[in-house]
Amino acid sequence: MKRHVFFISDRTGITAENLGASLLTQFPDIDFQRTNIPFVTNEEAAHTAVATIRSQTQGKEAPIVFSTLTDMKVQAIITDSSPYVFDLFGTFIDPLENALGMVSSHKAGKMHGIGDTEAYEKRVHAVNFTLGHDDGLSLRNLEEADIVLIGVSRCGKTPTCLYLAMQYSLKAANYPLVQDDLENSTLPPALSRCRSKLYGLTINPEQLSRIRHERRPTGEYSQLTRCQWEVSRAEKLLREEDIPFIDTTTVSIEEIAATAGRDMGLR
Amino acid sequence: MKRHVFFISDRTGITAENLGASLLTQFPDIDFQRTNIPFVTNEEAAHTAVATIRSQTQGKEAPIVFSTLTDMKVQAIITDSSPYVFDLFGTFIDPLENALGMVSSHKAGKMHGIGDTEAYEKRVHAVNFTLGHDDGLSLRNLEEADIVLIGVSRCGKTPTCLYLAMQYSLKAANYPLVQDDLENSTLPPALSRCRSKLYGLTINPEQLSRIRHERRPTGEYSQLTRCQWEVSRAEKLLREEDIPFIDTTTVSIEEIAATAGRDMGLR
Repeated sequence: MKRHVFFISDRTGITAENLGASLLTQFPDIDFQRTNIPFVTNEEAAHTAVATIRSQTQGKEAPIVFSTLTDMKVQAIITDSSPYVFDLFGTFIDPLENALGMVSSHKAGKMHGIGDTEAYEKRVHAVNFTLGHDDGLSLRNLEEADIVLIGVSRCGKTPTCLYLAMQYSLKAANYPLVQDDLENSTLPPALSRCRSKLYGLTINPEQLSRIRHERRPTGEYSQLTRCQWEVSRAEKLLREEDIPFIDTTTVSIEEIAATAGRDMGLR
Repeated sequence: MKRHVFFISDRTGITAENLGASLLTQFPDIDFQRTNIPFVTNEEAAHTAVATIRSQTQGKEAPIVFSTLTDMKVQAIITDSSPYVFDLFGTFIDPLENALGMVSSHKAGKMHGIGDTEAYEKRVHAVNFTLGHDDGLSLRNLEEADIVLIGVSRCGKTPTCLYLAMQYSLKAANYPLVQDDLENSTLPPALSRCRSKLYGLTINPEQLSRIRHERRPTGEYSQLTRCQWEVSRAEKLLREEDIPFIDTTTVSIEEIAATAGRDMGLR
């Protein structure tokens, strides 16, 4: 069973897509065909969007439309495009005005006004720090890090660090546990000095083997026995050193990052 | 004027925060104090969350609570925490069930089930490609890239590439225009070969000077006259080569990425 879904917004559409996608996961039996129409900032753009929706869904079941539009005139045009328009923004604005005892500004683009420069620079600084401290690239200035992820190669450290930097502006370093660390069950001195910032990632060995196989199909690196040894030694080390850790096998990068942030009291 | 705001979710809270934050920007005069309470997956966690909300807002104005909870029993407990609870999820589930002619599964954690492994690997592959092609690090395999951002140093290329990779699983390379390129107003041969993938970023020279100053306070690199020269030469080159470009001065990374994706027909 198929159904067209459109995400309409006056900005990037990420908010509409996020909430829309999480609502749609509640209907796993339907095959949703998704189209994102961002930057619908005026009535002309809204008419163009409606024309797109109509042309793609003609003769089919009425589409589902999720919108996050701040301009009510623009929203009104979109509302005509289908009997099933979900106004994710407008639905809450009136009750929110009541709760706050204040009329809202009803303006798009308020998210990145004055004062955001500082936030932007903090974010870019975090990203640069994170890039400079990926994969144990540098163990210098680790005391500057907000968090240091450790784990075996390919368990999800790099994307999680980048997400922590991009989403939460956290300076996230990571260090891959190597043969010596695993054999001796000890942390390198540079890491021992920032113990309170260490957070471990672990993973199911079968999954690890599969992921490594993608990258390097031959050799010991991707062999299941090798992965089993590395993971069991890594978990032993994490437990002995009393470092909190998470199993990343079935968890998304967003959730690993949010869990790490919560466990480390960083949010 | 201050007001407490809580974001309650059974996952990471990112959806609640995104939509909640964009609603709150409509009330610029209020100083919102935000608390994120993620992973509220059962009734016990909900009671703990309510206790947290009550303890932080006792004797103050009733807080604003945004929630995205799939379990209605858990939601019911949160609903009691304030007269101003905005159920971002439940509000739309009933009408969505009507639109789709189907009962929803009402289960949390549906977002990362079977089939997501492929999406995860595509994403990690994009992130790795992007990391390997940051800052002109490698001009090899550029034909594999989905998009190649070009512009002067510090105009936003790196974070935008990372966002394109993390959010949209796009292989995003970037190349900083250097002295030779700017003086000769020509593209290096490696870039000429992937012209259709080139997308330019430009920036206001004053802003650029300020950003560079943060990084390297002395020397020509951050001087305004230098930044003015680089930006004007870069824009001349982009125009001559007919490469689409965006001014990043007042635009967020999310929006630069979404705009580039749209302009290049990548979404």
